[in-house]
Amino acid sequence: MKLRSLLSPALAALLAFAAGGVTRADEGMWLYSAPPRDQIKKKYGFDLTDAWLDHVRLSSVRFNSGGSGSFVSGDGLVITNHHVGADDLQKLSDEKHNYLKDGFSATTPAEEKKCVDLELNVLQSIEDVTLRVNAAIPVGATGEQAVLARRKITAEIEKESLAQTGLRSDVVTLYQGGAYHLYRFKKYTDIRLVFAPEQGVAFFGGDPDNFEYPRYNLDVCFFRVYENGRPVKPAHYLTWSANGAKEGELSFVSGHPGTTRRLLTVPELEYIRDNQFPYQLALLKRREVLLSNWGNRDAENARRAKDELFGIQNTRKARDGALAALQDPGFFGAKVAAEAAFKQQLANRTDGKAALAAFTRIADAQKTIGRIATRQRLLEGSVAFNADSYGLARHLLRAADERPKPNGERLREYSDARRESFEQQLFSDKPIYADLEIVTLADSLTYLVEQLGVNDPVVKSVLAGKSPRARAAELITTTQVREVAFRRKLSEGGTAAVAAAKDPLIEVARAVDAEARALRKTLESADETKQQAQAIIGQARFALEGAGNYPDATFTLRLSYGPVQGYEENGQKIPAHTTYAGLYERSAKQGNQGDFELPARWLKKKSALNLATPFNFVSTADIIGGNSGSPSINRAGEFIGIIFDGNLASLSGDFGYEDQQARALSVDSAGILEALRKVYEVPELVNELVTGKR
Amino acid sequence: MKLRSLLSPALAALLAFAAGGVTRADEGMWLYSAPPRDQIKKKYGFDLTDAWLDHVRLSSVRFNSGGSGSFVSGDGLVITNHHVGADDLQKLSDEKHNYLKDGFSATTPAEEKKCVDLELNVLQSIEDVTLRVNAAIPVGATGEQAVLARRKITAEIEKESLAQTGLRSDVVTLYQGGAYHLYRFKKYTDIRLVFAPEQGVAFFGGDPDNFEYPRYNLDVCFFRVYENGRPVKPAHYLTWSANGAKEGELSFVSGHPGTTRRLLTVPELEYIRDNQFPYQLALLKRREVLLSNWGNRDAENARRAKDELFGIQNTRKARDGALAALQDPGFFGAKVAAEAAFKQQLANRTDGKAALAAFTRIADAQKTIGRIATRQRLLEGSVAFNADSYGLARHLLRAADERPKPNGERLREYSDARRESFEQQLFSDKPIYADLEIVTLADSLTYLVEQLGVNDPVVKSVLAGKSPRARAAELITTTQVREVAFRRKLSEGGTAAVAAAKDPLIEVARAVDAEARALRKTLESADETKQQAQAIIGQARFALEGAGNYPDATFTLRLSYGPVQGYEENGQKIPAHTTYAGLYERSAKQGNQGDFELPARWLKKKSALNLATPFNFVSTADIIGGNSGSPSINRAGEFIGIIFDGNLASLSGDFGYEDQQARALSVDSAGILEALRKVYEVPELVNELVTGKR
Repeated sequence: MKLRSLLSPALAALLAFAAGGVTRADEGMWLYSAPPRDQIKKKYGFDLTDAWLDHVRLSSVRFNSGGSGSFVSGDGLVITNHHVGADDLQKLSDEKHNYLKDGFSATTPAEEKKCVDLELNVLQSIEDVTLRVNAAIPVGATGEQAVLARRKITAEIEKESLAQTGLRSDVVTLYQGGAYHLYRFKKYTDIRLVFAPEQGVAFFGGDPDNFEYPRYNLDVCFFRVYENGRPVKPAHYLTWSANGAKEGELSFVSGHPGTTRRLLTVPELEYIRDNQFPYQLALLKRREVLLSNWGNRDAENARRAKDELFGIQNTRKARDGALAALQDPGFFGAKVAAEAAFKQQLANRTDGKAALAAFTRIADAQKTIGRIATRQRLLEGSVAFNADSYGLARHLLRAADERPKPNGERLREYSDARRESFEQQLFSDKPIYADLEIVTLADSLTYLVEQLGVNDPVVKSVLAGKSPRARAAELITTTQVREVAFRRKLSEGGTAAVAAAKDPLIEVARAVDAEARALRKTLESADETKQQAQAIIGQARFALEGAGNYPDATFTLRLSYGPVQGYEENGQKIPAHTTYAGLYERSAKQGNQGDFELPARWLKKKSALNLATPFNFVSTADIIGGNSGSPSINRAGEFIGIIFDGNLASLSGDFGYEDQQARALSVDSAGILEALRKVYEVPELVNELVTGKR
Repeated sequence: MKLRSLLSPALAALLAFAAGGVTRADEGMWLYSAPPRDQIKKKYGFDLTDAWLDHVRLSSVRFNSGGSGSFVSGDGLVITNHHVGADDLQKLSDEKHNYLKDGFSATTPAEEKKCVDLELNVLQSIEDVTLRVNAAIPVGATGEQAVLARRKITAEIEKESLAQTGLRSDVVTLYQGGAYHLYRFKKYTDIRLVFAPEQGVAFFGGDPDNFEYPRYNLDVCFFRVYENGRPVKPAHYLTWSANGAKEGELSFVSGHPGTTRRLLTVPELEYIRDNQFPYQLALLKRREVLLSNWGNRDAENARRAKDELFGIQNTRKARDGALAALQDPGFFGAKVAAEAAFKQQLANRTDGKAALAAFTRIADAQKTIGRIATRQRLLEGSVAFNADSYGLARHLLRAADERPKPNGERLREYSDARRESFEQQLFSDKPIYADLEIVTLADSLTYLVEQLGVNDPVVKSVLAGKSPRARAAELITTTQVREVAFRRKLSEGGTAAVAAAKDPLIEVARAVDAEARALRKTLESADETKQQAQAIIGQARFALEGAGNYPDATFTLRLSYGPVQGYEENGQKIPAHTTYAGLYERSAKQGNQGDFELPARWLKKKSALNLATPFNFVSTADIIGGNSGSPSINRAGEFIGIIFDGNLASLSGDFGYEDQQARALSVDSAGILEALRKVYEVPELVNELVTGKR
């Protein structure tokens, strides 16, 4: 793996500049408030105008379930990935209708199906509130005091903004605490399913082909946004390109990358490499085996587990790839060298002391986190209680305890500004399967015993003298939290009602709550210490390297860019595009079985398709998980494809950008049209995409 | 889970006796040299005569690859499980012939296929050599001295016996070192494949149904034993019962249970519960995900990984079940109580001191084992080097170093008595797939880094500055050990040839060899200390409880017994037998897909079958892994079925016997006949089974 920029991006830019103006790689997940105008102008001769940016931003949609999308018609039509919509398809399915597997198509508005609890957001404005936030932190505050003070001012700003504008208002942390911005979103909660293909073609190749390329996936799903019972008329939407992406052309990606960790210090990276990722991977593999095995016992089990299983396999593969990068002495050595070089620069300056001291504080805080990690993950992270029922039980307990407190002193998820979204989740009647809950809770209680030992007081209190399996069965069958009415009752009744219910699962949550909260406090305080120190380092970095950079991803809207371009692997040329012909070839080679089995419709309609139509393509745009469903856009601001994955080489993207082999994968807009026309024969939808009107 | 005997069996018997002659459960894996004549006579009125025992013993066959079987014709025909023969089916397969998946049938002797490296053993005699072994251990010897002395006397006895009798001669350890017996085996190495059904019916339900009941598996496979190019005429073989097993009748099982740990002390059990099993399970699940994912990428990958994947899933499920028993406060609490009661009895006797001190020594030795466990597993256990190529590389290195030493001072696997079997393995030309080796080695090197950290000298030396993935690819592609000729050359050339070859993989083995050997020495010394202490406790146990018991399983031939009998689960009656009708029902319910997909032949021949024919059945016989392929036998000494699994409740059998729900699973002899007649239409084989002659 060759890396163009395993250094911190800013330092890389500096070194590139120092080396005499080498053209900078197409790196970056840029804020809309600080777009890379100069780089793009210089390298591609293209002007990122305010109008272009506003148009793209207001066409971009955030899926609160974790993903991206965009408006593609003036009648509120939104496109995202099938795998982003999977959660909603699953919730709309039952034993008789498996929309996740079999797909769905509404030919009239009346047939569009309202999602159970989906919320979409569209970013309306960005306001820098760094000064106001920082001013609220008393001079000389401890980490813990700073957390409380920041939580208070944040809640205050959000509440005030909500009251003033009626918009969802989130204060987001950027540059590791170097800046705080107020993001205001138009929020939509009446979202209806319009069209989804079969999972067999949306996720063709399944987990085995996930993160691989070439690929052949129709990973799309259409929803329509309603307000007051009618489709919204968004001010902006992306025009659909019937031609799709052209090899070599500059493309943009507008979406919500979830998390990157490119500016972490070496001790933090070491912790991830030596502790966090190995721990997560072991847990993911444990759950993957558990769910696979349970799903394989019975076809209905498999349907129920499918969505979660996909999420696990997806993350597992991503982590495996990222861990490989961190275990690569070349990749990691460059990180170490870059940090050493930066520290040397700091040491040479009289004003570099504070930043150097900040490095030490981060290392110390990381040690604290490592010390509490096992118990913190189990008890506060609920790894010991892997069941949706438990999540509900704890929310009921904690919401009742938190609501009476002043808004600014509550645990963040119970703040007034988040209440509406929170309650939509809490009172959602999405199906929860008791038999699966017993299986996952039993396994996680087993894990709890493995981690803490049978004699730990928490273990004894949780198990109450029973085996993990027996206790899990008892808790899940006797708790009432899976009844929405029960949750409403307790939510309205507050602490007294919660206590009076004596619900066994809530009582388990109560038994671990004091320690769980204490662990969270320690963790948040250490994180706060790190954040403050990171902010100091970030400021020093700007002082040394100049501004005009992008912060690590935080599920805020970003703009990435790069040409549509193939690459070389083991001496082989991998072209930028695949075609429908490739889809049928790959399926045939695997005997059209298992993850490579095409839906019957696709076999039947093969002769109707133009097999040379582009299907998927790659670009060098800098993306990461959360970008799923982001539109790929050309200079004209048209929709030319939809991001759905990165290749294996891109898995190091969490920690650094490279453009030799790492690629962002999209479904081509021309390929989508071809499928909708020839395979699905949905003229209404095709017409809406082509004309922008229903 | 209700346990009849979670105490040590002997203590349970004592307590039962003390309680006034309660009929003893059908517990025990009995030595042929000390069969349970009295118990069986008393409870079932059946005489275990010497003739009956000799007949069954000499009809029993041990598969050295790990399993059991029996002669079922006078022309050397042997039956075992499909999953016992799987390893050999796999080795006979190639890209064009997948005998493991598709089955195999030889209608003439010429078509029988010679196995690559299978060795079968038939137990000829048992001699108690305890006195001779113990006499060779100097008084006051340290653990390490005792290991060496015992290794020396053992090698001497084995060599002497081999020279005298020409029989494979193994000194086996019984009663945790309370006794040493010399087992002499007739050894067969020309074994030919006669018949195997498709894996789809042999392992119907796959991993999902593994360890479950009711079951529907034709888990059988037939081989023929040759000597001097002709089928052997065994002195004894089991007559085939055309009627199969009758509900309620007494049945016997003669086979080779691998390992039980029923007489372990509490600190040893705690170690297994808190350290060993969680460690093994995490590793198994990691490998399961790795192989599943690799296999799912490509149909040929899947074929190559299938056999190992099955082994992993099988062990994983068994360990999960056994860990659940150990984490059950009821099960474990009874173990603790039984040990406390036994210690109390010892404390009340003047001669109990030595045994009590032995308990302390075991606890201390267990601590030593725990301290070195991580490095010992990685380096000596080769967990860090999960590739067949590495195993070969290390054997080449070590054999060259060991051969020049006196026989008694060598590492055990390089002793003269084992040389022939060892070289059959070392020079086997079984296929090793380089692409799979890279995948597994890369993963295990990643694990090495996770466990020891990047700065450990061993890690640095093994990785040589590369990433685990890059290093694995380099080592596997450049080593020559996969060439049989290379192995022969190095084996003949000794240390000089091995050093001169500078084979990169052998050099890795060399780099860790000193530490690996030291860890092994520490482990063996601690094991020896435990064994000596166990022997003292064992003697005290006999003194307190009388003789007439059975030792823990050690892959030596044992006799178990118990009636053919159903059970109750969650208030439901589970009948003793299943039928072919049930097979088709289960398949239909699962959409005849995946692990539940029946081979085409079975769908076609459904109407020819008598669907009411018994297919599988359960008995209370006390079995464990290694018993796979053991014959189930009636009083008349006839073959009525073949053991292939235990149910979930039986997974606690490692640590204790229970007969409420735990059951041994067999394929019924009547069911096998019906399939051979109606589905496979192999009159030659049917005739041989029915008449005992080809």
